[in-house]
Amino acid sequence: MDMVRNFHMAQGLGETSYAQNSRLQVVTKEIIESLMDITLSSAMEACAAETAPATVCIADLGCSSGRNTLSVVESIIRAVCERRREATQQLPEFMVFLNDLSGNDFNALFSLVPEFVQKLKAEHDDGGGILVSVAGAPGSFYGRLFPSSSLHFITSFTSLQWLSQVPAGLLNKGEPINKGNVYMSPASPPSVVTRYFEQFQEDFSMFLRSRSQELVVGGRMVLSMLGRRSHDIHKKINEFPPL
Amino acid sequence: MDMVRNFHMAQGLGETSYAQNSRLQVVTKEIIESLMDITLSSAMEACAAETAPATVCIADLGCSSGRNTLSVVESIIRAVCERRREATQQLPEFMVFLNDLSGNDFNALFSLVPEFVQKLKAEHDDGGGILVSVAGAPGSFYGRLFPSSSLHFITSFTSLQWLSQVPAGLLNKGEPINKGNVYMSPASPPSVVTRYFEQFQEDFSMFLRSRSQELVVGGRMVLSMLGRRSHDIHKKINEFPPL
Repeated sequence: MDMVRNFHMAQGLGETSYAQNSRLQVVTKEIIESLMDITLSSAMEACAAETAPATVCIADLGCSSGRNTLSVVESIIRAVCERRREATQQLPEFMVFLNDLSGNDFNALFSLVPEFVQKLKAEHDDGGGILVSVAGAPGSFYGRLFPSSSLHFITSFTSLQWLSQVPAGLLNKGEPINKGNVYMSPASPPSVVTRYFEQFQEDFSMFLRSRSQELVVGGRMVLSMLGRRSHDIHKKINEFPPL
Repeated sequence: MDMVRNFHMAQGLGETSYAQNSRLQVVTKEIIESLMDITLSSAMEACAAETAPATVCIADLGCSSGRNTLSVVESIIRAVCERRREATQQLPEFMVFLNDLSGNDFNALFSLVPEFVQKLKAEHDDGGGILVSVAGAPGSFYGRLFPSSSLHFITSFTSLQWLSQVPAGLLNKGEPINKGNVYMSPASPPSVVTRYFEQFQEDFSMFLRSRSQELVVGGRMVLSMLGRRSHDIHKKINEFPPL
């Protein structure tokens, strides 16, 4: 399967869609709150009154297509506006990029945008109003997505545990050694676990290299991803490692 | 009908889709070539070697979802790269915004993006390669879409004859005076024609005001729209007025 082109969450807004069964439900309320605290405080620092960019550019990477995506962005915009008001500075304009693979259901996501923008405008309209531009940016975050030095704040929630591809080299004399799985399972031999780990290292390095080019000086990034506390894949999975 | 939210061309990439029956076919080959000449030369001026922005931002407004959209963008990028090479200057990075109403089939459009970006990268890879970021920007162009002073080149082909709404005031004592049509027809009374003209003036003024804020100083814009040479709506329609 061409992961970059064809991989996506369940589309639409219906009962079985990813949008209705979405990502933040897999973690506890405490972790979500702690993550959002870190996110908002980092966003405020990145767009702080001292540097006060006229346009604040925000990217959510691996956004998928649920309402959660827009609610995180909304919280960030609200936090930045509050900070600017405290400093009695003019509100910035916002450019928001929602990124996911090109197979993501951007139509479903975009159907929520007009109401989202109207709501933010109404909430922050203290005379001049604010501008919130929302754009969908299709593509893999394991590579460059945006122009150099163009983003003030980057966030990615619970997406980086998805690798760019099934690791190469999972064959022994032409036979698959991972029992036909595309993921690590308790039945996978140690060599498979090693190859997945190496793939993660390669992917994550590429991710960090790409983002370091896209962030402005002084920009901030908040990432969360699922992981393991132990090398033993029989142990509990899907934990958030310590931040 | 909520035009901004629900209005869109026939979706998908199938036989009856807009993508397969698309806009430039309604005009002659000569007009297309002339329009493209103007477009490319304006794009080169906007992104010329003298000012040489490191990132060139391009917006196609009312892009719909066909391959034509990307082929116009491709021609612009190629022209700008040629001009930079002639001036032995470094190639810029490109940020391309494809805009249409939020009901447009962005999924179909985005499915073409990976191949498009790969092709451009391969074609212009003279060592460092080039970066082409493509984003979909849902929203009505009869209002602000992008941050202030953020675009170098704006184009809109055969979209501006679509108004933002059916004009208000098409009732006489509560009864519709336009025979149930949402457009002007030979059966429409003169007062209907006047209201459509006024709606166009209002919409186009808003369009120009918004774009003037979004263009950088020295940026360029190329627009084409269908129109009438005569006030008489019985005369031939769907002509390109003199540029």
